[in-house]
Amino acid sequence: MIQTDILVIGAGPVGLFTVFEAGLMKLHCHLIDALPQAGGQLIEIYPKKPIYDIPGYPSVLAGELVDNLMEQAAPFKPGFTLGDRAETIEKQEDGHFIVTTQSGLSHKAPVVIIAGGLGSFEPRKPKIDNLSLFENKGVYYMVKQPKDFVGKKIVISGGGDSALDWAIYFAEQDKTQVTLVHRSDSFRAHKDSVEKAFDLQEKGLMQIMTHAEVTHLSGEGKLHQISVEEKNKPTQQLAADCWLPLFGLSPKLGPMANWGLEVEKNALVVDNTLDYQTNIPGIFAVGDVNTYPGKLKLILCGFHEATLAVQTAYKMINPDKRFTLKYTTVQGIQGF
Amino acid sequence: MIQTDILVIGAGPVGLFTVFEAGLMKLHCHLIDALPQAGGQLIEIYPKKPIYDIPGYPSVLAGELVDNLMEQAAPFKPGFTLGDRAETIEKQEDGHFIVTTQSGLSHKAPVVIIAGGLGSFEPRKPKIDNLSLFENKGVYYMVKQPKDFVGKKIVISGGGDSALDWAIYFAEQDKTQVTLVHRSDSFRAHKDSVEKAFDLQEKGLMQIMTHAEVTHLSGEGKLHQISVEEKNKPTQQLAADCWLPLFGLSPKLGPMANWGLEVEKNALVVDNTLDYQTNIPGIFAVGDVNTYPGKLKLILCGFHEATLAVQTAYKMINPDKRFTLKYTTVQGIQGF
Repeated sequence: MIQTDILVIGAGPVGLFTVFEAGLMKLHCHLIDALPQAGGQLIEIYPKKPIYDIPGYPSVLAGELVDNLMEQAAPFKPGFTLGDRAETIEKQEDGHFIVTTQSGLSHKAPVVIIAGGLGSFEPRKPKIDNLSLFENKGVYYMVKQPKDFVGKKIVISGGGDSALDWAIYFAEQDKTQVTLVHRSDSFRAHKDSVEKAFDLQEKGLMQIMTHAEVTHLSGEGKLHQISVEEKNKPTQQLAADCWLPLFGLSPKLGPMANWGLEVEKNALVVDNTLDYQTNIPGIFAVGDVNTYPGKLKLILCGFHEATLAVQTAYKMINPDKRFTLKYTTVQGIQGF
Repeated sequence: MIQTDILVIGAGPVGLFTVFEAGLMKLHCHLIDALPQAGGQLIEIYPKKPIYDIPGYPSVLAGELVDNLMEQAAPFKPGFTLGDRAETIEKQEDGHFIVTTQSGLSHKAPVVIIAGGLGSFEPRKPKIDNLSLFENKGVYYMVKQPKDFVGKKIVISGGGDSALDWAIYFAEQDKTQVTLVHRSDSFRAHKDSVEKAFDLQEKGLMQIMTHAEVTHLSGEGKLHQISVEEKNKPTQQLAADCWLPLFGLSPKLGPMANWGLEVEKNALVVDNTLDYQTNIPGIFAVGDVNTYPGKLKLILCGFHEATLAVQTAYKMINPDKRFTLKYTTVQGIQGF
């Protein structure tokens, strides 16, 4: 059983900053995340993309921001349970919570702060009859290890940034054959990316099929062939080692939806008039996972919410002590 | 008459970030500040001190943070009225506000966001009968241009960081004579600074008088001599070109206190349940100048407050348009 002061569900940017703010008040945090590494969406979806709206950073790469938040949290020695999803929560007689993960690991703490971001975010899946037969056997909804795809025949579906960025990336790799399939001829991706993709097509490094859709998959044990219907043409059969249907990720609360928390529009309702606490005392929700009147899903808002949540957490954990806010500029940081 | 979309009172970190968030929504800002440069307290009081609690910055110098916020705001071309204090506000028949400064300059805008920090912060003055005779003629409450003091006989009073930092700084300058006078022997300043000051005393570069107080000033037209009473000793006369009584700054709302805004504990009461609006519709208050249940005077909280305030400002300025939040990661920044 892992014990800590504050159990943080979600190790994205807001979860990491919670560690720092809790640390300033001498509270220890342990973080649980279904992803195999800290950083949340920033690492999972767009580590190399610049973010422009973090206050004080005219531009920062998502991955770099996570590195900095990890460094800022480090003096307070957070614990991590990664690659393991928080499944159940139980309130004990002593008022503490026990959160158990998918793998069966138990964590105990008097306060839980959910910084769950998009939740256990799940890919938007295409409607193809035999899709499930090929999942992880040629069909992938995310590119975790780009090197696994190099040298292969890849079909990518989608018209957004993920689809374009990966199509361009693989088209530029040696011996890798890329076909981009998109159902219209207008792309949601960045203009520069779209131009680059058509350039690569001109150079013979990528094939782009617009007004086209993947309609069938075939193969024995793993994917070998994909059927594509292009407007006003007969169905085409493409030889393919893998298909990446990159239609975006759909946020899902996952098991948390059954924790007895008030949910609205797939987000946890919190009290924004004080401390971002949910309807269950002792459980807070901060960052993209919560909702309240006027909520904006911005990282900078999560930083503020986490900071206020930690104040109440402190009072719950230390009902008899009074904490006086001291500025870090005056006293510096003392780690654990 | 200067006209803009949002008039921001205060050009500190939160005022500067307001420019950026407003800019993302195509709203133009003009900032008014009593100080002669942007940056607020960070530049006026501690430009060379590190801050540790800006999310994503394990450590950043206050001055560096201001530079970054200026760079982040720059694409949105803010206007500045600096070194001039906002004195009066009048609501016009068209619903817009006119803010006039001390120098008589008028500014018109449909929305006013007060990011006033500590307000027009004023030094805590010592009780010395003839103090006013020597103000700016040897008595200074802030060090604006350090070079003006180099080579002088300086007496510094106080036991906090400002007093110690400046005493150390000047003691290390050529031909500069420093006496530090403190009324007790325990210092509120950082331990390292106190040790350093006593080191400098050992080396003959600084004189430290504890349990001592300045009781009288004399000179003709400008300061020449200071009387100091040290515990259990007769009154001493010190030759001095300048006296820096550094007893901290006391926040004062200044003229804003008469704008009809609800005030509590020297801060402006705002609605934290939605958009940090004051009791006067169209006037918001964000950052250290505001108060609400659970308020923390942290820069990061001001960033969040400003961001939400700007959302409502947008709706007030464009009642018929609907703005959809787009992530900067996806579309980048388009300036004006």
